[in-house]
Amino acid sequence: MGQMPDLGFATVRWSAEGALRIVDQRRLPGAFVERDLVTVEEVAEAIRTLAVRGAPAIGVAAAMGLAAALDHRHREGEARASRLGDASATAFPSCDALLDRVRADAARLRETRPTAVNLAWALDRMVARAEATRGEVAAILAGLREEAEAIRAEDVAMCAAIGGHGLALLRDGMRVLTHCNAGALATAGIGTALAPVHLAHANGLRIEVFADETRPLLQGARLTAWELLRAGIPVTVLTDGMAASLMAAGRIDLVLVGADRIAANGDVANKIGTYGLAVLAHHHRIPFVVAAPWSTVDLATPTGAGIVIEQRAAAEVAEVQGVRCAPEGVAVHNPAFDVTPGHLVTRIVTDRGVHHGPYLFAVSSAEIPPPA
Amino acid sequence: MGQMPDLGFATVRWSAEGALRIVDQRRLPGAFVERDLVTVEEVAEAIRTLAVRGAPAIGVAAAMGLAAALDHRHREGEARASRLGDASATAFPSCDALLDRVRADAARLRETRPTAVNLAWALDRMVARAEATRGEVAAILAGLREEAEAIRAEDVAMCAAIGGHGLALLRDGMRVLTHCNAGALATAGIGTALAPVHLAHANGLRIEVFADETRPLLQGARLTAWELLRAGIPVTVLTDGMAASLMAAGRIDLVLVGADRIAANGDVANKIGTYGLAVLAHHHRIPFVVAAPWSTVDLATPTGAGIVIEQRAAAEVAEVQGVRCAPEGVAVHNPAFDVTPGHLVTRIVTDRGVHHGPYLFAVSSAEIPPPA
Repeated sequence: MGQMPDLGFATVRWSAEGALRIVDQRRLPGAFVERDLVTVEEVAEAIRTLAVRGAPAIGVAAAMGLAAALDHRHREGEARASRLGDASATAFPSCDALLDRVRADAARLRETRPTAVNLAWALDRMVARAEATRGEVAAILAGLREEAEAIRAEDVAMCAAIGGHGLALLRDGMRVLTHCNAGALATAGIGTALAPVHLAHANGLRIEVFADETRPLLQGARLTAWELLRAGIPVTVLTDGMAASLMAAGRIDLVLVGADRIAANGDVANKIGTYGLAVLAHHHRIPFVVAAPWSTVDLATPTGAGIVIEQRAAAEVAEVQGVRCAPEGVAVHNPAFDVTPGHLVTRIVTDRGVHHGPYLFAVSSAEIPPPA
Repeated sequence: MGQMPDLGFATVRWSAEGALRIVDQRRLPGAFVERDLVTVEEVAEAIRTLAVRGAPAIGVAAAMGLAAALDHRHREGEARASRLGDASATAFPSCDALLDRVRADAARLRETRPTAVNLAWALDRMVARAEATRGEVAAILAGLREEAEAIRAEDVAMCAAIGGHGLALLRDGMRVLTHCNAGALATAGIGTALAPVHLAHANGLRIEVFADETRPLLQGARLTAWELLRAGIPVTVLTDGMAASLMAAGRIDLVLVGADRIAANGDVANKIGTYGLAVLAHHHRIPFVVAAPWSTVDLATPTGAGIVIEQRAAAEVAEVQGVRCAPEGVAVHNPAFDVTPGHLVTRIVTDRGVHHGPYLFAVSSAEIPPPA
């Protein structure tokens, strides 16, 4: 895999004091602000308001935030008890008191983004770890921090694995079109779809990225552009309607996007606009590659037809960054995702390898060695 | 052709006092404000700041504004001369003085949008009319007003003719996708691409329109949505990246767009994003129709390869309605137009008829009866 990238930032990490430190993405791209979150309420608010976003990143942030906040509460309680000379002033007088708090805090964090599967999964893992730990309050807290660190490290490793597998598809001088932000800002590591790009850059390949701005929420213009600029990777922002003519002009060599969910037949649900890019890439004979965690492959969903598309608020389209642009009272279409049929997807890269069509993902896919 | 549409507004018209009255499009869609423009400077400012926009509309507005402003200046001069009892206080003491003013004002108006062919064409026509008119100042002014009214009426007739020819392609219940604004707001009449839609609606056909918001300048969300709402035509706004999945879902029956320039082989230059829609329509076997004035067909341009694409300011993409969204210093791609090859265009509708491929436009095309 060679040199690992230095992105110049970490979306979620531990501070020196053991708090959860996040990049506040509400301030990007105008300002780079890191915030240390000490209480569960601060963590919940950061997730709810998209200060931290991206499925992998919010799962990691919730786990780390839960562990850090409980630790903080415990240390404050100990200090209080010592100051007052009253052992009952501690935060967690018993393991049961701590476990009750773990469950309540996990529930509070889970409700911030009810549809985020990674978030629920990470929090379930934290609660299970607390419940399974034998010993005193301190042992449970240590176990929780260990579990959170494991979740973080696994996310970093997942990103690196996607990057390593995807790197095989990149060549020096390639011009890559991407959509939305499936980058480092959406994970604890070097991203999912952008992981191969970060890795290629760190290893001396010259990769140029074209970033769709990605209306309605402009994650491409705001986040992907910022992340790649910060990493020193040449990036050009365009509106979503400009990709086709770039392809026609022979200025795109590869389309590389993430996925929110992949059906067993390789149909890919991803940010609205992805399907159109796949059709355009097909028309122009440009490879269309999806890179996402293996956990995104949903074996219980046979085809994309089974994926329900969330319709989001009209205001996201009718307004841009809070400024009204469409007339009052007009109807608005605002699906969050679209579905790209697997036959338009040249390759699917996961942390388990590079998969090619026809896609027939199954439990056993894990054991199939990826094609070179 | 049946019933002519009542849109509930006129983009450019004469006020009762003979001034140029425009809909101030800078205020749309938030407010419907009409403004009467009395001086050439006011007209120039309205064109420069896009209070009036769209190639046909600015040509008409410049001609009407020139005639109205000269009339106004003349009447003021006469009143002043009469008040002072001094005939030399009149605005135009001689025909030569008036002709000098016509030429200077036309030059002032022409420079407001240097690349707008219609604008130069309309102003050349006004200057020629003034120069060709024999007789006194009053006769020249009357001739100018007549010429401006002819330009306006021809634009209205051109729109109606496009609407009439295009109507043959619409069926009751059709769901039409459009891009940008090639509507009544871009002309003195019922529009170009939207003319068939307005006419169909006026004649009882139920047509539903899906309007791409059309980044970067959002003419679809701001203008097309407003215009169709005002006319009582059902319209839904979507971001540019959402069109593909609507097509895949079988929710679009026809794509209908305008053109800025059509090469002799039917290649179409139009607002950026049009080409991608043509590819998507082709993939989904949806008819892709261009409707534009015959004057848009440029017989001197054999193919789209000869059309130079204007690159516009980075800020249009990096900002949305004045709010910065992309990071400072990022590269931006912002072509104003793209070129759709004629083989992807199912029909081209002009005021001369409905043309079908393979397109071989020539001077004689004018005489070829359009196919039914």
